[in-house]
Amino acid sequence: MTPLHPILVLNGPNLQLLGMRKPEVYGSRSLADIEERLRKLAGELGVAVECLQSNHEGDLVDWIGTAPGRFAAILLNPGAYTHTSVAIRDAIEAVGLPAVEVHISNIHAREEFRHRSLIAPVCLGQICGMGTLGYELALRALAAHLRQNQAQG
Amino acid sequence: MTPLHPILVLNGPNLQLLGMRKPEVYGSRSLADIEERLRKLAGELGVAVECLQSNHEGDLVDWIGTAPGRFAAILLNPGAYTHTSVAIRDAIEAVGLPAVEVHISNIHAREEFRHRSLIAPVCLGQICGMGTLGYELALRALAAHLRQNQAQG
Amino acid sequence: MTPLHPILVLNGPNLQLLGMRKPEVYGSRSLADIEERLRKLAGELGVAVECLQSNHEGDLVDWIGTAPGRFAAILLNPGAYTHTSVAIRDAIEAVGLPAVEVHISNIHAREEFRHRSLIAPVCLGQICGMGTLGYELALRALAAHLRQNQAQG
Amino acid sequence: MTPLHPILVLNGPNLQLLGMRKPEVYGSRSLADIEERLRKLAGELGVAVECLQSNHEGDLVDWIGTAPGRFAAILLNPGAYTHTSVAIRDAIEAVGLPAVEVHISNIHAREEFRHRSLIAPVCLGQICGMGTLGYELALRALAAHLRQNQAQG
Amino acid sequence: MTPLHPILVLNGPNLQLLGMRKPEVYGSRSLADIEERLRKLAGELGVAVECLQSNHEGDLVDWIGTAPGRFAAILLNPGAYTHTSVAIRDAIEAVGLPAVEVHISNIHAREEFRHRSLIAPVCLGQICGMGTLGYELALRALAAHLRQNQAQG
Amino acid sequence: MTPLHPILVLNGPNLQLLGMRKPEVYGSRSLADIEERLRKLAGELGVAVECLQSNHEGDLVDWIGTAPGRFAAILLNPGAYTHTSVAIRDAIEAVGLPAVEVHISNIHAREEFRHRSLIAPVCLGQICGMGTLGYELALRALAAHLRQNQAQG
Amino acid sequence: MTPLHPILVLNGPNLQLLGMRKPEVYGSRSLADIEERLRKLAGELGVAVECLQSNHEGDLVDWIGTAPGRFAAILLNPGAYTHTSVAIRDAIEAVGLPAVEVHISNIHAREEFRHRSLIAPVCLGQICGMGTLGYELALRALAAHLRQNQAQG
Amino acid sequence: MTPLHPILVLNGPNLQLLGMRKPEVYGSRSLADIEERLRKLAGELGVAVECLQSNHEGDLVDWIGTAPGRFAAILLNPGAYTHTSVAIRDAIEAVGLPAVEVHISNIHAREEFRHRSLIAPVCLGQICGMGTLGYELALRALAAHLRQNQAQG
Amino acid sequence: MTPLHPILVLNGPNLQLLGMRKPEVYGSRSLADIEERLRKLAGELGVAVECLQSNHEGDLVDWIGTAPGRFAAILLNPGAYTHTSVAIRDAIEAVGLPAVEVHISNIHAREEFRHRSLIAPVCLGQICGMGTLGYELALRALAAHLRQNQAQG
Amino acid sequence: MTPLHPILVLNGPNLQLLGMRKPEVYGSRSLADIEERLRKLAGELGVAVECLQSNHEGDLVDWIGTAPGRFAAILLNPGAYTHTSVAIRDAIEAVGLPAVEVHISNIHAREEFRHRSLIAPVCLGQICGMGTLGYELALRALAAHLRQNQAQG
Amino acid sequence: MTPLHPILVLNGPNLQLLGMRKPEVYGSRSLADIEERLRKLAGELGVAVECLQSNHEGDLVDWIGTAPGRFAAILLNPGAYTHTSVAIRDAIEAVGLPAVEVHISNIHAREEFRHRSLIAPVCLGQICGMGTLGYELALRALAAHLRQNQAQG
Amino acid sequence: MTPLHPILVLNGPNLQLLGMRKPEVYGSRSLADIEERLRKLAGELGVAVECLQSNHEGDLVDWIGTAPGRFAAILLNPGAYTHTSVAIRDAIEAVGLPAVEVHISNIHAREEFRHRSLIAPVCLGQICGMGTLGYELALRALAAHLRQNQAQG
Repeated sequence: MTPLHPILVLNGPNLQLLGMRKPEVYGSRSLADIEERLRKLAGELGVAVECLQSNHEGDLVDWIGTAPGRFAAILLNPGAYTHTSVAIRDAIEAVGLPAVEVHISNIHAREEFRHRSLIAPVCLGQICGMGTLGYELALRALAAHLRQNQAQG
Repeated sequence: MTPLHPILVLNGPNLQLLGMRKPEVYGSRSLADIEERLRKLAGELGVAVECLQSNHEGDLVDWIGTAPGRFAAILLNPGAYTHTSVAIRDAIEAVGLPAVEVHISNIHAREEFRHRSLIAPVCLGQICGMGTLGYELALRALAAHLRQNQAQG
Repeated sequence: MTPLHPILVLNGPNLQLLGMRKPEVYGSRSLADIEERLRKLAGELGVAVECLQSNHEGDLVDWIGTAPGRFAAILLNPGAYTHTSVAIRDAIEAVGLPAVEVHISNIHAREEFRHRSLIAPVCLGQICGMGTLGYELALRALAAHLRQNQAQG
Repeated sequence: MTPLHPILVLNGPNLQLLGMRKPEVYGSRSLADIEERLRKLAGELGVAVECLQSNHEGDLVDWIGTAPGRFAAILLNPGAYTHTSVAIRDAIEAVGLPAVEVHISNIHAREEFRHRSLIAPVCLGQICGMGTLGYELALRALAAHLRQNQAQG
Repeated sequence: MTPLHPILVLNGPNLQLLGMRKPEVYGSRSLADIEERLRKLAGELGVAVECLQSNHEGDLVDWIGTAPGRFAAILLNPGAYTHTSVAIRDAIEAVGLPAVEVHISNIHAREEFRHRSLIAPVCLGQICGMGTLGYELALRALAAHLRQNQAQG
Repeated sequence: MTPLHPILVLNGPNLQLLGMRKPEVYGSRSLADIEERLRKLAGELGVAVECLQSNHEGDLVDWIGTAPGRFAAILLNPGAYTHTSVAIRDAIEAVGLPAVEVHISNIHAREEFRHRSLIAPVCLGQICGMGTLGYELALRALAAHLRQNQAQG
Repeated sequence: MTPLHPILVLNGPNLQLLGMRKPEVYGSRSLADIEERLRKLAGELGVAVECLQSNHEGDLVDWIGTAPGRFAAILLNPGAYTHTSVAIRDAIEAVGLPAVEVHISNIHAREEFRHRSLIAPVCLGQICGMGTLGYELALRALAAHLRQNQAQG
Repeated sequence: MTPLHPILVLNGPNLQLLGMRKPEVYGSRSLADIEERLRKLAGELGVAVECLQSNHEGDLVDWIGTAPGRFAAILLNPGAYTHTSVAIRDAIEAVGLPAVEVHISNIHAREEFRHRSLIAPVCLGQICGMGTLGYELALRALAAHLRQNQAQG
Repeated sequence: MTPLHPILVLNGPNLQLLGMRKPEVYGSRSLADIEERLRKLAGELGVAVECLQSNHEGDLVDWIGTAPGRFAAILLNPGAYTHTSVAIRDAIEAVGLPAVEVHISNIHAREEFRHRSLIAPVCLGQICGMGTLGYELALRALAAHLRQNQAQG
Repeated sequence: MTPLHPILVLNGPNLQLLGMRKPEVYGSRSLADIEERLRKLAGELGVAVECLQSNHEGDLVDWIGTAPGRFAAILLNPGAYTHTSVAIRDAIEAVGLPAVEVHISNIHAREEFRHRSLIAPVCLGQICGMGTLGYELALRALAAHLRQNQAQG
Repeated sequence: MTPLHPILVLNGPNLQLLGMRKPEVYGSRSLADIEERLRKLAGELGVAVECLQSNHEGDLVDWIGTAPGRFAAILLNPGAYTHTSVAIRDAIEAVGLPAVEVHISNIHAREEFRHRSLIAPVCLGQICGMGTLGYELALRALAAHLRQNQAQG
Repeated sequence: MTPLHPILVLNGPNLQLLGMRKPEVYGSRSLADIEERLRKLAGELGVAVECLQSNHEGDLVDWIGTAPGRFAAILLNPGAYTHTSVAIRDAIEAVGLPAVEVHISNIHAREEFRHRSLIAPVCLGQICGMGTLGYELALRALAAHLRQNQAQG
């Protein structure tokens, strides 16, 4: 099988603090741990991942905008921008790459304003509340999706 | 390690039609196929599953109410009752078993009234839009959750 | 002309009470009378009808789910479920049979929460406020619709 | 039986375009065709109809205001005024004649703002989504209503 | 004192039916009676009135648009257009003549949609629920307003 | 004709400041002036008035509650309580005396929260924006209403 | 005094779990205990009770529909259906028996969606937050209501 | 058993009119009758009551604020202040005494604005629609609550 | 190049007053001036314009309905009907001609109810706040659109 | 420098309970302590304060209404009336004195209905969540404001 | 005539993708093409333009903040920030330069959340749906506006 | 006493323009002046401040994320991001430092969308409308808070 482009893993605002703050909500793993486990699982699944984090909405939009041709899919935890960023939504929709939205916590069990995602409607779907395991589930889903498309192509 | 109680897999209204109707939305696998694949994956993960489907809200409430002591967790696709059933929500909350909500389609990309889940807030979380693979991801999440609790217990 | 499959006539909650309660709102005919008149009119129109009633949302979903291949169309008075049942809506949409929603009373002249039908958007249309005659009008509409499709087929 | 006053058939804005525009939504029959078929059916039912159309809300209000004493009932497709005209509502309510509201398309399956009728609450009821056949069903309903009142009178 | 321009008395849709319909809501006086009484009171107050009625929103907008230079003020019962006509509001605001809105019935005790007037905010004020006497109170208010302006002029 | 009970004139919060504050909104007449003019007009109309003012919602409720048998009607400017007092509304409704609500300014041209009156629905009606003349118009309306009732009695 | 028909005591979804789950919210008494105490109190009050529980909305609608002629009144804890069931509301309204709605917990102190009861408006009233004692208070209220009607009959 | 502090019975605005106005809504008993019956029942239950009524929100707040140390609980019919008084809510919450809210009529069957109680969320619960008997039910509930606390103390 | 049909320029209610009223909002040019400038620019752009104004919603609907075959496009300032007329929206949508909506003032900087246009969604787009120059910009846009279509045709 | 009029310090409902109830929310200082500290700080700032508290909305309105000429500014903690009193808002606005609103707790972190202040829009501003120190900050702000005005006067 | 400062042309998020993505919505021209055409038209109109694009809200705010003294006006397509950025709105309002908002697509025909612009109210106005020609129309409007101000200056 | 970490003073978008634009709203002091005065007051209070400003939401999130261990508290004027930034809210909440939100103008007296702060609920509180003095009041509050914690530590 032809090798796939890598999968772009994007983390949004405050996710650089993972493991340092509020472990009862976000778990005790650092972002580096999560990325390490993703790379390991990616190897098992025969794909590659490239991981970026920024607190700047504009960085996320920049990175998504340059993804086509370099990445096959996007695994995205937009953090707080989930609920406020039309710009990230538009970027995902514009580049047309398959994307999955991940949230570590169960956003539907938190404040009302966290229930609505502006970005999920332009993704394949959303995984939330599975803790940091959610990233790995999302990676499995994207890898399966890409292999299936490849098989059909 | 002590064997776990099995995981109860519940499917709600119209999911008996899977594979027969609207394959472009819900995929071409039948519910029996999905359950078969779940049983296989369960075996790999060292857990058991028991699968039930009903179009009756009351059946789902009945089954959840009798789950404690017989099941370790609940994997639930409440179908249309996701958006209208306080009764299922209360049942999940009352029995206190870990639960994951699954939707085959991306409910956030469909009609407005499908965006809100009454049940997700009392689950660990929600997986949607991953097609029928979502059931397998949810099973992985529940198995990991139970093993982790067991390890901490 | 090829004979058509019969038309499934479904009545929802509390319609078994017709003629017994609130005749000033719902008329003095019993459900049996209405069904009798529908059978008679069906004969004149060259179609058959089969009539079922239940107070259980799940029964209605069950019956709709097994209608394809056995029935050509659905004539539906969902009663109170009109305003609350996404499950019946999904069933109608999933099976793809032409359906007409009937209400004996003028739901637009009653309480605010009766103005919205969750089910009408997936039907051909809605007839309300014509009393029990509404069932007969709906039968005429469905018969004409089926004959026209047959002619075009 | 005493002859009845004729039934006034009113069509509102843009219905003069029927058959010329958007046949996939409104069918291919012209308004003249519909009126012709209504006259024919009226003959069979032993009533008379008189048909008027205007794009002017004020014309519709004028005609309704002068209907008592000359017409026995009103069959009304208010078109776009359905959703915006308190004046037509007040006219129907003021003259106290039985009225039925008809829509060719299923307004409940279209834009949100078309779901609410300001006029239906003061009519006997509403028929929508039955195509141009809806006019004939409405005529049957009004004829039956008038005969029944006559019988009781 | 210089004679004033006359006061334009405008009545909107369905007010031609006054006295003929729903006397328990709108009283038993015809519009002609009301206008006659207004003319009589106008004489006592040393002003003149000119009275017009139309069911056409456009007529009311036309008449208001040509009022400046011919009329000193406007006494307006916009009927149903009260709640729906931005056009009449804009006309009143554009011509800048003092205006008073009158309603025979107490619109605040009727349906929710009758509570809001789009036009009252650009009038001096509103009088409602005083029966047909409300017209006379409004005339008194406008006459006093004009005399006071004249005195200050 | 039998003499009528006097009319109770109630003024609510901050109306004791009339003439002292914001004359461009509320005019330059003091409350004493207004009451003086009301007494004079009452004499002309053959009725009596008794005038009270309080900033306390409870005082207004107390006074209304003891009005029956002592007063024939109520002329009420509830000031800010117009928009917040269910208690005054209930008092008016409970005692069943005819009441008219007056506002000096045009409440419909001010902040959104001033557009809704909780009290107007249980009054005969509302007069607003006529300046302090509004009290006199309201007195005329109440006097006419009482005479008419007396004539019919 | 003529003996009364018994009072039908209906409990809705998840109330079979009473005493087993969340005692801090719902108390530690089982449903059987509650029913036992009701039977005892009923004896003291000279009435009889018959107790049913179901998780199925349709069962509750069935039972209410067949109550007339067999039961004199209904004591109802609709559980989660309180907030979602128009069908139960319609059933209560249709059969016309006096009914009282009971909630063990104070629904007004819980989630927003629990504040509104669709069913209370067609009952005599509602008792909530009194713990399981609420059932006994409701029984006292119904017994008093029935005796009073009997006395007036 | 140690004697309990008495229970403070508070009635809010317009309840001094009970029995005099609208007996079809509020019954024919005067407030004095109700208080008399409460005193009698209190004797039977081994508690004392002290009854106060005021139309002034501030009086109710004053009385609640001085209740601790003198009263064991509060039985409260806040009348119209139910829907508008954050001050009474805060007083109840601040003093921390157990309280029960009573309404004679079924507030859920009346105007929309009467459905919400600002005060019920800080009470044990609410009893409504049971007529004046509701006070007695509330007294039973409070007495039972206090005895139970005493027993546990 | 084949000559194009002319462009229909429609102005709605109160636009006949342009230049006479509120020049600080709407500028000092009369409608005749604007139309004159449009004709001149049309000549430069090689198109023709035909200009109509009415205060009657029905006239605008009439004119749009007869535009196909006679006009190539519509330049429309619907004035107040922008915010209230579903009928004009339906007419534009029905005839399928390219249309541009123009507003002289910046409707987004005015009252809330002016922010929403019912008509813009069925036009190519909207130009607002550019003063009377907006008409000329709209004409340029329509001319370019028609030439482009012609070139592609 | 000319001596300033004193600053009126007003505390609303339940603030007489400060220090006695809920110290975790409102701190452990009594109102007398707060007032004492304010007097001390006032001395340092060269101003005087006069402190009043009432649970009666009407008292607060009375006191504000008589403040002009006797007080230079108002420091106001309206307590629960913050969210419900248009009367206090109108009083502040009418007398035109500079005012600052203080809340001990962070109202934006409490129930939704506490987020909106009806009174803040007519004050200089609002200080909340600073505990009882907030009063002192407000006094500093008012003293600075008055000195600045004096300097500019 | 004095030469004008240049016009600052700002493009927001994802507009760097123009011509590359979704040509059916945004046309096939790249941003460089658009800027080139703007420069050419600017030359014809005797003005200069300077063009900047960023996906970072903060960059747009930075650039607007430093525009005064260097630029005469702003031509702005804020992309997704149109609907979410109060910061850009405040920047435009703070610098006080004339600005025009442009959208390539018809935002009123897209998702509900795109209908509202937070920025348009502080611009001269808005042009949308004219494709990339909209930039040129906006440039014409700004050039005319500046020349007119210059002429009046 | 142990020296405290310095207090981080953060200013958000457009605050670099202070003193240059809209002095009637924001005063005539530049941000440098404010910071200078804060440093001076900090000295008097025995604390240190470090001041940063950015128009980039991401910068503010970055700075807050790195504050723990280096700063003792945060004094924050989030400018426009107050109303739109969940990211800044999450950052404040995640780092757990005491924070105070300051606004120079009275946001409650401005546009509706400025009334809600997304950030205030996770701060100690909010100070608004005190002009640039508000920063100094906030510094006093934070210094007192830190000293108090230190004293209790």
